[in-house]
Parts: sequence; C-alpha cells; structure tokens
Amino acid sequence: MPSQQLLRVGMVGYAFMGAAHSQAWRTAHRFFDLPLTPEMTALVGRDEQRVQAAAERMGWGSVETDWRRLIERDDIDLIDICTPGDTHREIAVAALAAGKHVLCEKPLANTVAEAEEMAAAAEAAAQRGVFAMCGFTYRRTPALALARRFVQEGRLGQIRHVRAQYLQDWLSDADAPLTWRLDKDKAGSGALGDIGAHSIDLAQWLTGQRIAGVSALMHTFVTERPVGGDFVGLGGHGATGQDAARGPVTVDDATAFTARFDGGAIGVFEATRFALGRKNAVRIEINGTAGSLAFDFEESNVLQWFDAADAADAQGFRRIIVTEPVHPYVGNWWPAGHGLGYEHGFTHQVVDLVTAIAAGEQPRPSFADALQVQRVLAAIEASAENSSAWQSTTD
Amino acid sequence: MPSQQLLRVGMVGYAFMGAAHSQAWRTAHRFFDLPLTPEMTALVGRDEQRVQAAAERMGWGSVETDWRRLIERDDIDLIDICTPGDTHREIAVAALAAGKHVLCEKPLANTVAEAEEMAAAAEAAAQRGVFAMCGFTYRRTPALALARRFVQEGRLGQIRHVRAQYLQDWLSDADAPLTWRLDKDKAGSGALGDIGAHSIDLAQWLTGQRIAGVSALMHTFVTERPVGGDFVGLGGHGATGQDAARGPVTVDDATAFTARFDGGAIGVFEATRFALGRKNAVRIEINGTAGSLAFDFEESNVLQWFDAADAADAQGFRRIIVTEPVHPYVGNWWPAGHGLGYEHGFTHQVVDLVTAIAAGEQPRPSFADALQVQRVLAAIEASAENSSAWQSTTD
Amino acid sequence: MPSQQLLRVGMVGYAFMGAAHSQAWRTAHRFFDLPLTPEMTALVGRDEQRVQAAAERMGWGSVETDWRRLIERDDIDLIDICTPGDTHREIAVAALAAGKHVLCEKPLANTVAEAEEMAAAAEAAAQRGVFAMCGFTYRRTPALALARRFVQEGRLGQIRHVRAQYLQDWLSDADAPLTWRLDKDKAGSGALGDIGAHSIDLAQWLTGQRIAGVSALMHTFVTERPVGGDFVGLGGHGATGQDAARGPVTVDDATAFTARFDGGAIGVFEATRFALGRKNAVRIEINGTAGSLAFDFEESNVLQWFDAADAADAQGFRRIIVTEPVHPYVGNWWPAGHGLGYEHGFTHQVVDLVTAIAAGEQPRPSFADALQVQRVLAAIEASAENSSAWQSTTD
Amino acid sequence: MPSQQLLRVGMVGYAFMGAAHSQAWRTAHRFFDLPLTPEMTALVGRDEQRVQAAAERMGWGSVETDWRRLIERDDIDLIDICTPGDTHREIAVAALAAGKHVLCEKPLANTVAEAEEMAAAAEAAAQRGVFAMCGFTYRRTPALALARRFVQEGRLGQIRHVRAQYLQDWLSDADAPLTWRLDKDKAGSGALGDIGAHSIDLAQWLTGQRIAGVSALMHTFVTERPVGGDFVGLGGHGATGQDAARGPVTVDDATAFTARFDGGAIGVFEATRFALGRKNAVRIEINGTAGSLAFDFEESNVLQWFDAADAADAQGFRRIIVTEPVHPYVGNWWPAGHGLGYEHGFTHQVVDLVTAIAAGEQPRPSFADALQVQRVLAAIEASAENSSAWQSTTD
Repeated sequence: MPSQQLLRVGMVGYAFMGAAHSQAWRTAHRFFDLPLTPEMTALVGRDEQRVQAAAERMGWGSVETDWRRLIERDDIDLIDICTPGDTHREIAVAALAAGKHVLCEKPLANTVAEAEEMAAAAEAAAQRGVFAMCGFTYRRTPALALARRFVQEGRLGQIRHVRAQYLQDWLSDADAPLTWRLDKDKAGSGALGDIGAHSIDLAQWLTGQRIAGVSALMHTFVTERPVGGDFVGLGGHGATGQDAARGPVTVDDATAFTARFDGGAIGVFEATRFALGRKNAVRIEINGTAGSLAFDFEESNVLQWFDAADAADAQGFRRIIVTEPVHPYVGNWWPAGHGLGYEHGFTHQVVDLVTAIAAGEQPRPSFADALQVQRVLAAIEASAENSSAWQSTTD
Repeated sequence: MPSQQLLRVGMVGYAFMGAAHSQAWRTAHRFFDLPLTPEMTALVGRDEQRVQAAAERMGWGSVETDWRRLIERDDIDLIDICTPGDTHREIAVAALAAGKHVLCEKPLANTVAEAEEMAAAAEAAAQRGVFAMCGFTYRRTPALALARRFVQEGRLGQIRHVRAQYLQDWLSDADAPLTWRLDKDKAGSGALGDIGAHSIDLAQWLTGQRIAGVSALMHTFVTERPVGGDFVGLGGHGATGQDAARGPVTVDDATAFTARFDGGAIGVFEATRFALGRKNAVRIEINGTAGSLAFDFEESNVLQWFDAADAADAQGFRRIIVTEPVHPYVGNWWPAGHGLGYEHGFTHQVVDLVTAIAAGEQPRPSFADALQVQRVLAAIEASAENSSAWQSTTD
Repeated sequence: MPSQQLLRVGMVGYAFMGAAHSQAWRTAHRFFDLPLTPEMTALVGRDEQRVQAAAERMGWGSVETDWRRLIERDDIDLIDICTPGDTHREIAVAALAAGKHVLCEKPLANTVAEAEEMAAAAEAAAQRGVFAMCGFTYRRTPALALARRFVQEGRLGQIRHVRAQYLQDWLSDADAPLTWRLDKDKAGSGALGDIGAHSIDLAQWLTGQRIAGVSALMHTFVTERPVGGDFVGLGGHGATGQDAARGPVTVDDATAFTARFDGGAIGVFEATRFALGRKNAVRIEINGTAGSLAFDFEESNVLQWFDAADAADAQGFRRIIVTEPVHPYVGNWWPAGHGLGYEHGFTHQVVDLVTAIAAGEQPRPSFADALQVQRVLAAIEASAENSSAWQSTTD
Repeated sequence: MPSQQLLRVGMVGYAFMGAAHSQAWRTAHRFFDLPLTPEMTALVGRDEQRVQAAAERMGWGSVETDWRRLIERDDIDLIDICTPGDTHREIAVAALAAGKHVLCEKPLANTVAEAEEMAAAAEAAAQRGVFAMCGFTYRRTPALALARRFVQEGRLGQIRHVRAQYLQDWLSDADAPLTWRLDKDKAGSGALGDIGAHSIDLAQWLTGQRIAGVSALMHTFVTERPVGGDFVGLGGHGATGQDAARGPVTVDDATAFTARFDGGAIGVFEATRFALGRKNAVRIEINGTAGSLAFDFEESNVLQWFDAADAADAQGFRRIIVTEPVHPYVGNWWPAGHGLGYEHGFTHQVVDLVTAIAAGEQPRPSFADALQVQRVLAAIEASAENSSAWQSTTD
C-alpha cells in the first residue's frame, strides 16, 4: 500500500486509556473499511524502559520519552493524548500548531480557560484541514448510538426528563490508595470530571439539547488516603496497607446536580465512585412525549425503548439487544446476538475519526463541544461552592 | 365475641384510598392474629346515594354524609381519613379531641402549620391513650420492611448514598383531565406531595437518618388541562376530549432535589408523573460502607441486596424474592414464592396500627414523624422558589 | 338482597387452597359486579374443633365434619373441593348428582378412570344447568390472560415452540418431612400432578393446541423422608428433625418431557421441587412465526412480548407491566402500576365461575378439559415407565 | 525475538469462525503473557482472489488455495481448522501426522466414526508432543469459567438438575436461504450440532458429569428453502427472494432431549434457531444441594449464583458481574465493570491453547472430549429416530 493511504499515529500515555486506544488502532481496519489505514507509529512515555515494554506489548513501532519529539517527527499524522488532564492543553495546542490531527481523552482540560485555548487552536487548525476530537467514547456504544438515532428521528417526541447516573464503587474502600485521579492538580476534579463528564456529554448529545443551568452538591466521603502505593493495575484500583502514610483527597468523591436544558427538559444527574456493588453503571433514561429510552452500561448491548404508539395493551419497555446488522456499527462484527464489549467503543471512535479526517470534515465531539461540557463542569463546581444556588452555564 | 374486642372504624372518603383501606380492614384479621377485631362500622361521603352504594360494595355497616357525625357517634373507635389533604387537619383534630384514634392518609396536611396543629393534637391525645398514625403504607411492603431490618442490623455499615425516584406517567398525556390532585388548594402540591412524600418518608425511615437540608427544582410541563371531565376510575386517571375548556394546573408536575442527611449521607430524589412507561416505579437505592440495597415497586416482591462481605469472586446484588416465611409479614400469607400485591401494604398497616393501639403504644409513623416530612416538603418548595439555594429543613 | 341473588357456597378442606379460595369468595364481589353474590355458607373438615376455628378465621357461616352433609343441605348451591386428589371423584360426583355446582381443585383426579367418571357426571349435570369447573387458577393471572388474548388475536402467527418450566425448591432439603403430597395414594403423583399439571393446562390453553404425544423422564432424588412431623404451615412445608423415622417417597420429585402438539408445535416441559433458589417459578415461553411470549411467575405482573412486526432496529421483548385498565381483570382493582398478588387469580376464578353459572354457560376449564390434562399426565407416566418411548395421549 | 519463540499458525477457512479466530490470534499476546507468540503465517481458501483479500484484511502473512500446502510447509506449527464439519477429519488427521498442532472448530466431526479416527490420531500425536484441541469456546467465557470454578470447589454440593437451552431465531423466517448449515452432508446435523453441541459440552464440563443416556425429539419446521442466494454476511444469515428455487433442508431445525448424567443429575436440553426474539441465548442453569447457577449469553458478563448457605432472610440469586480482577481471564483486560464481548472467548482459547502447548500438556477439550460429545450427538439422533426411546451414549 502506498504511504499516503496511512494515518500514522503517535500516542502519549499507555495506562488504561492507552491500552484501550491501542486495541482500537490495532483493530479498526480489520473490521471496517477505512479510507486511511492507521499505523501505530510511536508511543510516548517518560520512562524509557517501561514505554519500550509497553510499545512491544501493544504493538507500537517506536518509542519516545518526550511528547515534543512527536511534534517534530514528520512521520506522525495524528497525536493521540491519553495522559491526565493537566497535560492536555500543552500537547494538543502544540500538535495542532504543527499540523497534526489530535485525539484527546476527556475531560478536555482541567479548567475552562485551558479548554478555551484548546478550542480556539482547534478552530484555527480546522481551517487548515487539521482536526481535533475529544474522546467521549460512550457515544460509540451501539446501544447509545441507536438511542441518538431514535431521538433524531423524533421517536421520543418532545423530551421532558433526563436522569443520568454514573455509579462505580472502586473508592468505597477507605483504604484504596491515593492515585492521581484523587489529586485536583492532575485530574481537575474527581467523580465529576472522571465519570460525570461522560454523563453530561451523553445527555446533551442524545437529546440534542444543551444544559443551560445547574444546581449542584459535591461531597468527599474519605478525605485522606494511603500514599506511596505502587501503581496497581490499569486503572490504579489497587489497595495498600492500612499503615501507610495518608495524604489528602482534593477532589469530590460524589457529585449530584439538577439541570435545565435549553430545549425545556429537566435533568437529574449523579456521579459517584462509592456506590457499593455498582461497577461501571453508566445509566441514562430519557422520557419524551412519545417515547422513553433507558440504558445501563452493566447491560451494554441493550437499549430499553418504550413507544407510546404501541397498542395500549401491549405497551412496555422493549429490551432491544443491540447486536443486529441494522444497528449502528454492529454489522461489521459478528452475527446476530453476539455482543460487543467495552473496548469496541474505542474502535468505533477510530472509525469515525479516521473517516472524518479523510473526508475533510470536523469529527465530533469537537473541542468546541468538549469546551461546552467543560463550562457545565465549571458551573457545577460554582454552584456547589455557592450553597447549590442556581448557576447558568453561559455566564 | 364481646364488643370490647372490636375496633369500630369509621372511614371518610371512598375513592382509590378508601377502596384500598376497605380491603385492608376487611382482610387483616383473616390472616393475622389481631388483639382487636376491626368492624367496618360507618362510611362517610357527601353524596348520600353514592356513599350508600360504596358502603354496600365495600362492606361498611352504615353511612353518614357529614364526617362530624362520626365524631358524635359512640360506636366509633377509630376514624380513617381518606380525603384530600385540605380536609385532614379539621377532621383529625376533631376526632382526636373526641377520643377517637385516627389513621390519616399522607401527606399529613397541605402546610406545615396544619401539620403542626395536628401533631400537637396527636401528642396531647396520646397522653390519654388515643393514638394517631399517618398512612405511609410503603413501609409495610415486605421487601422494604426487610430493607429496614438490614439497615438496623448494621448490614449496610455507614450509609453514604440514597437515590430515590418515584416515577409515574399518568399525566404524560397533555389532555389528561384537571383533577383535584392538580389543584394546589386541595392537594397542597403535585408530584412532590403525592408521590415524593413517600420517597422522603421511605428514605428517612430506611436509613434512620433525617434530611437536614435540600436544594430543589420544581417544574410544571403542562400548565393547562381540560376541566369538567367526569370522575373516571378510582384514581381519577381518565381522559377527556381535546375540546373541553381548560383550567390552570397549579402544582408541580415534577420535583427533583439533592439532600444531605443528618447522619452524613447524601441523597438525590426525583418525583414525576411524566416518566412515560413508568407506571408506579417507587425506586430506592442505598449504598453503605458494607452493603447496598435497591428496590423498585415494579418488582414489589423483590429486594436487591449487595453484601461486601461475600467472597470476592462471588459478589453481586442478590435478588431476594421476599416471599418466604422468614420475611416480614409474609409468613401469614401463602407458601414460599407466592407473591403479594399492592394492597397488602394496607392490610399490614392495619395489623401494625391495631396491634399498637391494643398495646397502648404509639403507632408509627406518628403525626410527629409526618410533620417532619411536611417540613422537608416545605423546605423543598422554599428552595425551588429561591433559585434552588440550599434550604435547611429545621429553620 | 333477595336470596335468589346469592350463590351459597360450601367448601371442603381449609389448608393452603382453602385459605386461597376463602379470600376469593370473600373478595370477588367487592371489586367486580357479579350476577350472584357469593355467601360463605359452610366449611367442612374432619376435626370439629379445628374446622370451627378455621371457619371463624376465614369467615364461613357454619361448619360440617362430613362433606356428605353439604350434599344434603338445601342451603348450599355450590361445593368447592379443596382436598387431596384421592377424594375428588367421590365428592364431585355426589355433589353434581345432588344438583350442586362444583369447583374442584386440580389435578382433577388421581387417575384417568376417576377423571372420566367425573367428566361424565359433569356433562350430565350440565344438561340440567348444573356446572363443574376445575381450578387451574393460573389462567386467571392477568399477564397470562393477556398472553392468551394475544395468541387468539393471531399476534404470534403459527406457534412452533412451547417451553414450560415449573420450578420450586421446597423439597430440596432431604430432611423436609413426608407430607401427603409425597404419597402416591393421596396425591396421585408428585411434581407432575402438583405443578406440572399447571404447565400442561397453561400450555394447551394458551396455544389453543392439545398435546398429542410425549416422551418423559421421571425421577425421585430423595427416596425416604422423616415421618411424624406435624402438619406445618399452609403448604405443609415444614422441617422435622433428622432423627425422625423415615418413610418412602412414592412420587416423582421431578418430571421432564418433550411433547408434540396437535397444531404442529413442539414442547419441552420440566417440573421440579428441587430447583434450589426457585420459589414458584411458573415459566412459559411460546415462539410463533410472528411473535413470542414469555412469562415467569416470579414477576407475575409482567408479560414479555416480542413482535416481529416492529421496526427492524427497534425489536426486542417488551416488558408489559400488566397493571393497566386495558388488561384482563385489572381495571377492577387499582390505578396503573399497582400490581396484584398470587391470590388475585383465585378471585378472578370466582368471578368467571359465578358469571358463567348465572349465564347458564359452561365455565372453563370444564371437567372435560381437566380430563384431557389427566390423559396427558397418564401418558407421561406411561412413557417414563417405558424407557421414555413416545406415548400418544389419545391411545 | 528468536523464531523458536513463535507459534506459526496456518488457518483454513475465513468466514464467521475464521474472523473470530483471526481476532484472537491477533490479540491474545497483547493482553496476556504467552510463552509463545502467535504469528499469523498463512490463510487457506479455495478462491485465490477472495482468500488474498481476506488475508490482507485479517492480517495473515501469506495465502494458500489448498490446505494440503500447509501440511507441507515447514514454517507452520499449528493448523486452525475453521471449515464445515465434513472436512475436519481429513485435515486434522493429516496435520497431526505431519507434526502440526491442531485447533479444530466444533463439532469435531459429522459422524462418530470420523471423530474416533481423529481422537485416535490426536492420542498418537500427543505421544510425540503434538496436540489437538476442539473449539468449544464458550468454556472461555469468564462467567462460565467462574461457574466451573464454583462447581469444582463444591459450592453447589451434589448436582441434581441441568437445564440448558440454546435459542436463536435466524431461521425463523421461512425465506431465509439454504446455506451449508442446512445441508446434512456438510454440517452433519442442524441445530443439534451447530448449537446443541455447545450446550452438551458446557453441561458436561461445568458439572464434571457425563451424559449417560438420552431421549430425544428432532424436528424440521421449514423443509424447503430458497437456493442460489449469494453468501451473505459472516454467518450466511442473509435473505433471498421468495421467487427463488427451493431446495430441501436436510437437518433438524430444533432438537430437544432429556438426559441422565453418570453422576446422578438429570438434564433437559433444547436447541433451536426458531425462537423468535432470542438472538444467541446460550442458557444453562444448574441446581445442586448447596447452590444453583444460571447463565444466559444475552447477559454474557453475568453469572447468577444462589447460595443456600446465605442467611435465610437474605437468600437470592446473586447477579455476579464477572468483570473483576478476581474472575477468570478478566484481570488482563480492563478495570472493574468494563465488560467483554463475544470474541474474547476466542482470545482466551488461544491463551489456553498456547499455554498448554508450550508446557507440553494436553489442551482441553481434547479430541477425546469432543469425541464423547459426538457420541452424545449420535445417541440423540438414534433416539429421535426410534420414537424417542431411551438411548445410552456408550452402547
């Protein structure tokens, strides 16, 4: 194949997100017809030995220990940012300036100011045919892509209610270690940015409405945790001893907020990593005047759908098993009924990104989309700091 | 049987709640050993012909067209109030003053002031051995009674999260008629008092914690509805034509609020009658440090229970089918696995009420308990009127 | 009310089934408009003291210690037989001969010969306006009545598959006592007649097809059990000590069979009281060319329905919560979403029976219907005794 | 890496199974530490152009148009057979004779005679350190691997009941085309071998008991189907016009059987591709004296587990979400709660196979294991042809 058909990727970071992205870059063209074939060209990490080992395991062709080298390399077309939020701005802005496409993990940044700078850089780059996208991958879960199709086709009528929960429990143990995700400087916020941001993006994307205002409550249940624990597992979900020194948790353990959307819907949101027994329950339910949708990532291949147009004695939520050729993304995988897993969303993300880049079109969610999510995150924090008083997202 | 063994009941109102209470008075002593045998002595309604027909159908021995006649009658030991909230205070206070026990439907009243007067009257009456109880019947659903047992036994550890939803959809149709439940003068509030009050009582009763403060959002989706429709069905859930004259809806269609409990838990609540496809979804989930509970009235015989003490590879929410002799109330009914229905909660309410009266003990929830719920309702309304700003429930 | 409007009932037996029937006789006219008002006239039991106590508790107006007295009494219009199967024939035939209507618990008899005699007696009586019905009450569960409506309306198309399971676990403990249900002389058979008979009746009634032939396997896991235990609980599901003397179990603990229906469907059936964790799982699934239905009594208010005519991307089993006014029987009870329990099927049975008697029409299932079920039971036993070889039900 | 660390694979066939196997060979060493690194060396197909395109898409390094060439090539260590059952014997026997390891799709063969020859060849080869395995991949679904662990640890006690269903619906449409899977010469049998074989293997593997005898019913609902339709989709699940010429279906559309296991359990099995609405419902439930397990591939990341040792009031099936590091295979993938999909079973199969080969140990299921499954399949056919009469599997 001639090299102009390749999309040469450099990725920064190789923990949980890096592993998921690698599997996606490795797999997408095996199941989908892509206009450009991804090449896993370079992987970046600070520790040379570890990044070398990761590159071999994950299938990257070379390594760098400084992301700035990727910017300089001519053989890199796209930079994939899988690092904590405090590094996003610098890498993304530099990459776009150097003419590299960018895929950046969510949340886009740790502050609105950073996100604004990134969105401006992305807008300028897009004029030159260089594109940036933010990695809200749940959009690529087939059941949620189907949900959006239903809304766009008007099957729900006018939307009135959104209720969204993102429930995990890996911090429920008060002796779980103090990882970077609990450090406000690195992560920006806690449950809010890590998982609540997904719910916000999903709710807005599914409904086609934006959150206009919020009233929020944020809480930290465990204010100190053991430090010095080695990095354990992809997500750093390990446990350390009770005797370890403890450091402060500087982010929220749980965030809840009510919201009004600009299209008239009202919303109730909750994000927590303390819901014992809930492992990765990304739940969203939407009620309209003509139908309702419900989803829970604990049954990720299922979309619940209630159609008010059904015969009166036969109405009920349908358990649509989203594994059929007629469903989004699914036809490229297995026969009917053979479900997909968590990582497939990342593969679909690569498919959509590569397709948009090749077509010269803006991939979504754009940095502008992600900036708007960032404004919602900021409004939530502002409300929580102001006795839950109502806070507009556009002030 | 000698008459002192009877508990002679007079009931006011005979719509949906009256039918449910009648079934309970008729049934309780058939399955439970009661210290006093209920006698369905008198039924009260304003329309003589209709109340007479209702009494025959429901099995009441006599009728009255003015509740004040019940107060005067010597052959009435207990007055059961099943009328809209605007009448509760007057009837209850008079009945207690006359030495009649009182069972009063929820919410206790339409205002805190009324509820305070009622609680004071109840406290005074209790000194004389005359008792009052408020009808938060969901407490008597076996699965929820089991949930409370688990909390009280400490199986959940310290409680961190409460998420409670009460979802119905019978107002989703914008042409559903304007019943008394949509009239603030009669009903006090809309979704908040009608169904949200149940969630508040359940959440506090289950956790043993009281709501200390709230931030709330209330919304009315359909501001005018057809008037003049005949009363249709027990719950008045009928539909009238689109040509009918329309009158204003003066209550909330949906209410959502965040809360902090006095024991450290945080809560997220939502009550609506616009969640298309959800018929009577009384949902509550509680996460503690040692376990979690979840309940949905759409599976009313089931309690979900997660025990963090289970073997690590065998943890998961248990679907406890609460139909076994070891479960609260259940042993008096059918063999294992033969579920109960909605109305059984009312029968259990009669059992608990009659047992407490005979023992000279205060039945729960007392009017004082219900007054506290009323204060929470008032705080929610105050917050909603004040841009969702935080509102203490004890100010 | 003039006495000709009454239907005066005498009931024989007052254990589990007697309690369920009493609740039905007591309740039906409170919620349904009946052409005749049931009067609970007399209860029959061998032990005078116990039957007297039961009558008081259950609300029967008089007692007898010999069922033959009911036959003689002029003030009895209908005899309700709630005793073990070995007594059905004698009571029913005598009652019908005496001009009493009969409601007889299932299975109709312990042998085909007995059932034939009963069906002949019923047919003769029907000529004189005296009717007999057999108590396969699950037909009156609203969700199953709705299922039948769907089949009759052709919504399933041509039926291909029936899979039916009736799973309980109350004999799983090898020390559960030897009750009459484990004695072939009294009960006729074990899981087969006690619970499998329900599945057979349901499958035939729902599909409108009759079982033409079967191949069966019957098995007894625990061949001896403790004797001498007192009768414990309504269903006799108590436990006795391990030291008790043991007697032989003479019935099947579990029965499984494959079947062919006369309309072309094939069926797979299983009945057991050893499915640990399954309390009363009456499950049936039916697949046709146009739709599928599934039901599990563990969610007794729910019918699962798959419609192949739904849009291709929106197909899925609908969870119909059968609690709406448009559903069979439900409109007479509570508002939307307020589910019914196990015993409501018995109330509906009274409604259907009384309505048919007043109209001079044959109530269903007739004794002829129940005789046909008995033939299926006999064919199953014959096949099991003959190395599972295929056995026609009409030979 | 030195070449002796590679395991060089040649694969025959590249339809549905070939795609799944390719993804597994491509992915296994990216997530698991393997003692040998798979190399996707050669792909075999009869049509050179198509096999070349498939090889590029799937990532195979070279192609052949005759599987015999693989046998001759020195750079092939293992042959992976993904073709219809009528070709398995010849390829596998030749490969083993040539010293190539073999992975063969299920069912092992189309007849017992073929399977016997293959098992003999495998046994002989194993003496020389050359191994054969049959691809019953569901064993590698984490939830089922966990189920087996529970049984082996004795958590279920003595097993009494197995009920297994494998339900699909892709043949429900009578105009679905006549593919090779409906041709007895190619496929051996229909639902029985295609999907029922999985249930048989699972049931025996999970329980540790072998099926000793069966009574079976086999049925073909649609006896003629359109021919000449192009191969459509990975599974050939396409539809052709109604006007097409029709050819005979020579296999079973559905098979049901009862079984006795050599350890005392009884089983009920059903396999069909006509269960409208069921896409890939691989269901199995096992009841023991101490616990019960239930699984449905429609929720493939979940294992239901009932423990009779739980507190009496807290018993219920636990919904174990099998996505935790403590669960089989899972720790190598994502953090808690991030589920796997259908294809991961194939990746785990590669892991287990490569690990066993490197250790010089027999991978399971061996050809001997698969031969025993074949004997059960043959007994089922024999019983079905003999009026369902009992048929031993060892005669």
